[in-house]
Amino acid sequence: MSASGRNGTLADIGEFGFLARLLPLLPGGAGVVVGPGDDAAVVEVNGTRLLLTTDAIVEGVHFRQGWMTPRQIGRKAYLVNASDIAAMGGRPRFCVVSTGAPPHIPVRSLSALHRGIADAAAETGALLVGGNLSRAEELFVSVTLVGESKRPVTRAGAQPGDLLFVSGTLGLAAAGLHALLRDRRASGSAVTRFREPVPRLHAGAALARAGVVSAMIDVSDGLLQDLHHICEASGVGAQIELEKLPRPRNARTIETKLLLSGGEDYELLCAVPERRAAQLRRLVPRLGCPLTWIGRVMPKTYGVHVRNVSGDDLEFPQGGFDHFAAARRR
Amino acid sequence: MSASGRNGTLADIGEFGFLARLLPLLPGGAGVVVGPGDDAAVVEVNGTRLLLTTDAIVEGVHFRQGWMTPRQIGRKAYLVNASDIAAMGGRPRFCVVSTGAPPHIPVRSLSALHRGIADAAAETGALLVGGNLSRAEELFVSVTLVGESKRPVTRAGAQPGDLLFVSGTLGLAAAGLHALLRDRRASGSAVTRFREPVPRLHAGAALARAGVVSAMIDVSDGLLQDLHHICEASGVGAQIELEKLPRPRNARTIETKLLLSGGEDYELLCAVPERRAAQLRRLVPRLGCPLTWIGRVMPKTYGVHVRNVSGDDLEFPQGGFDHFAAARRR
Repeated sequence: MSASGRNGTLADIGEFGFLARLLPLLPGGAGVVVGPGDDAAVVEVNGTRLLLTTDAIVEGVHFRQGWMTPRQIGRKAYLVNASDIAAMGGRPRFCVVSTGAPPHIPVRSLSALHRGIADAAAETGALLVGGNLSRAEELFVSVTLVGESKRPVTRAGAQPGDLLFVSGTLGLAAAGLHALLRDRRASGSAVTRFREPVPRLHAGAALARAGVVSAMIDVSDGLLQDLHHICEASGVGAQIELEKLPRPRNARTIETKLLLSGGEDYELLCAVPERRAAQLRRLVPRLGCPLTWIGRVMPKTYGVHVRNVSGDDLEFPQGGFDHFAAARRR
Repeated sequence: MSASGRNGTLADIGEFGFLARLLPLLPGGAGVVVGPGDDAAVVEVNGTRLLLTTDAIVEGVHFRQGWMTPRQIGRKAYLVNASDIAAMGGRPRFCVVSTGAPPHIPVRSLSALHRGIADAAAETGALLVGGNLSRAEELFVSVTLVGESKRPVTRAGAQPGDLLFVSGTLGLAAAGLHALLRDRRASGSAVTRFREPVPRLHAGAALARAGVVSAMIDVSDGLLQDLHHICEASGVGAQIELEKLPRPRNARTIETKLLLSGGEDYELLCAVPERRAAQLRRLVPRLGCPLTWIGRVMPKTYGVHVRNVSGDDLEFPQGGFDHFAAARRR
């Protein structure tokens, strides 16, 4: 690679800064319903709408040696992709995997990793149909998942006045990550959630099918970061009620920072027009997970604010997990 | 990863050894027309047949620093996937990319890499519709390509008596690789071909549409290795005429080893039933590349033999490029 130019390095602008520059330069074309920049692309082939998404997990970045079994690594590499399909309201169908592995990796480990992908896919109604294996110094597992959806939900439809909801609880996976950073043999529900995300496929599909959500995203980079993605795509602001954020059971003392910016929750964050609230209420018992009201969509000029229990308005800067920004801060 | 078990390491059995163990363990299911193990998977969604393939290029394995510009790296990451679609007789439609990059990578380089993918896709009638960017110590670029084909051709249909043909010429990219290994500033047609594969999309689609090929594969791991893949999948043997192998112009002195096992040719190797030979002859002028007769499909018991100009039969062991076996030999 050439020397750093006047635009600087990836660490200077981060993943999202890079994407903001790149995406406008990519050509669109026939068959693209939703292009790059959402949880999944939506394309049309012979009248069939397909969702396409890809995500990788990398040793030394997303996990360290000893944190996860090979089977867990494979499962997680699949499940984080399934979460993107859930956020579009889709159904996973077929996946392929591109793995990079060092030559000294035991065959048994590599088999367990790939069977982990195949099993996790099967549990969500999808099939592992192909892949590629490269040599690499550090292990990486990149899964691409093809889903389908008759009525995909994007990040772009939220309107001022819409209600904001989040599924499940927040901060648990991030607490698990912190526990593992302190002690790689840590265990408990937080570590389990870090190791194995629970994609909200049933809830995402039900919300999309019922037509009650105006925008949806999966919370992978932290609530605030992903809320910012919805706000940017929809051209709106938002107000969040700090005390409404759903805290994990047995972790009532979880830090506010983890709730707001922890990352890897893989919960759904969605906007619901007020006129759909009654319909949503009837739907909630059938979603398979709690859905909690956490705030409201505001006009763009309002920005994004988190209000604490005293009613004080706190403006937060865009704050989620960015691997490249993390490297910069070090 | 756990310690090496009784099955040994990936270096012990190589990529193909690993795949031979893994593939029988993967579950099949509804919608899978061709499962893992061919150039691309064939799946059916709402009656539409899709091809899915994924391939990665990794710094330090597939190329070294200074060998290729970022744009060339992006183009190659796409084109090697397009070659897999060509080998199925398909048409590329949509791709996504999963990139791993170190934080110090210049934004300009990363942009050029991704625009290289998008431009190469556009040149072959496809669109880059999504992606993911991870932090990684070494650069990797993993592209997944979705294609379509009404009549996909697999590796599995060759019958004894079929004629074997190869497109273009062999050994040029491998000669380019050797030149770069000697001098990273090397140039010339061989280096150019190493840097930029030419997927035979037009030829592959025309051969598939005409129904003249019984089996097809792209020569990515070397002629002998990929011929072995056809032989295994079809349950046949083969006889190759060494002096018929198409040598690149201006490289008449190319080593036999590179012709047979060089790798990265990205040409098409296909089997044609003898009764289709006249039809094929009429088709050849419209393929956009030469197609050369190089041998014949034989019964399985015959094995795979290469016959030299004196008529001596030389049995070759399975011999192509395997990154993991290469690591073992060191």
